[in-house]
Amino acid sequence: MTTPRIWTAALLVIGDEILSGRTQDRNIAQVALWLNLQGIRLAEVRVVPDRMEAIGRAVTELRAANDYLITTGGIGPTHDDITVDAIAAALGVEVVVHPRARAALEAYYETRGGLTEARLRMARVPDGAELIENRMSGAPGIRIGNIMILAGVPHIAGSMLDALSGQLEGGLPLVSRTIGCWVAESEVADMLCATERDHDGCQIGSYPFFRDGTVGANFVIRSTDEAALAACAADLATRLGALGHDPVDGGI
Amino acid sequence: MTTPRIWTAALLVIGDEILSGRTQDRNIAQVALWLNLQGIRLAEVRVVPDRMEAIGRAVTELRAANDYLITTGGIGPTHDDITVDAIAAALGVEVVVHPRARAALEAYYETRGGLTEARLRMARVPDGAELIENRMSGAPGIRIGNIMILAGVPHIAGSMLDALSGQLEGGLPLVSRTIGCWVAESEVADMLCATERDHDGCQIGSYPFFRDGTVGANFVIRSTDEAALAACAADLATRLGALGHDPVDGGI
Repeated sequence: MTTPRIWTAALLVIGDEILSGRTQDRNIAQVALWLNLQGIRLAEVRVVPDRMEAIGRAVTELRAANDYLITTGGIGPTHDDITVDAIAAALGVEVVVHPRARAALEAYYETRGGLTEARLRMARVPDGAELIENRMSGAPGIRIGNIMILAGVPHIAGSMLDALSGQLEGGLPLVSRTIGCWVAESEVADMLCATERDHDGCQIGSYPFFRDGTVGANFVIRSTDEAALAACAADLATRLGALGHDPVDGGI
Repeated sequence: MTTPRIWTAALLVIGDEILSGRTQDRNIAQVALWLNLQGIRLAEVRVVPDRMEAIGRAVTELRAANDYLITTGGIGPTHDDITVDAIAAALGVEVVVHPRARAALEAYYETRGGLTEARLRMARVPDGAELIENRMSGAPGIRIGNIMILAGVPHIAGSMLDALSGQLEGGLPLVSRTIGCWVAESEVADMLCATERDHDGCQIGSYPFFRDGTVGANFVIRSTDEAALAACAADLATRLGALGHDPVDGGI
């Protein structure tokens, strides 16, 4: 059996509002779940401030280390929206006005006061880029090489992900199965380790919780192989039972 | 006027559960808000999987580039908890059992089935480390050099942050003031840019929203200088008024 190729992506979240704690991030989980469906694994996330050098350095490293790089944030019309400039600089290309983006913004703002200089900023792209459709508002997302540049507002970023669905080459989707148990994870730690060792291609994560004054844990098995996943889950349930615990399929 | 020194920290979130989208991260905002109160700026966040090399590389880069590095996740008793091993390897020190951590775990597990081999894993620290008190459960956090190693479960991480409050040298806290307005940010983009330019030491972030079918934005001014912040906020409110918009102090 040859090991299937694993496709990876990095996510770069751009924005002072995340680093200041003002805004609770919603894009990491959203992008992670979407990538799973495309058969692409989220390998790393970085959050950087609205600064040219910080964005540029992260873009250069992450796009080289992964099949894809997704960025969120910093593509609006104001002075703190510098993502396009920073990525163009990192790629060594000019920033140009994309004619189709300009047309989309003209149509969107026709009944909203017209296309001003500031609004036209949202039609600027790194030279050579394609657009990603935005069904929610006027400004499109941008694709250049292996970089996808999305909005920061989560529902707009989500709509851009919808537009990208099925467009990126990926591998087998990572599937998971959760088995919960009212047990302290420390009581079954050795068994978990042995179970993972006995099932090639499966990883078991252990996520403890405290609820109603009692400790429990959810054990999440992940694999790209459905059959291996099912076998590992069945084995884990059997071993929990043998230790006197009740496994709860689907998690607690 | 000399520019005050800016103290920075990086946050390293360790855990497959964040990268798979299974768990919504809560530690980034929590750590960011806590750091603000300590006068330390969160300069970068990375999220990496439970893998030795990924953790080690991030630790080496982030601790060198910042005054402090905070990590969350991977300090429990199971096989996927490898944070201590990865950080010790990155620092080139041995992993040892800390006698006071061992004693704390013995006390905690005395009425909970005793200290097993797996539970003793939580007393392991990089050689030379101090402990960070954990009032919620048996396993302490760890401090070694400029690295603070915290739990991944948000309320336990929060309790460890409480224990660290006032312990880290910082500078002036970053303060912020929000002015909201029912206006498309693109309409006032030039004015925002000019206002920021006229107020040294202040940054203005613009955060648009769509609510009840209408667009608006919150403008967040940040500074370490209270007087500069107040002057910038007053000026911004005046300029919004001059353009025919109603500024809402405190944000919308």
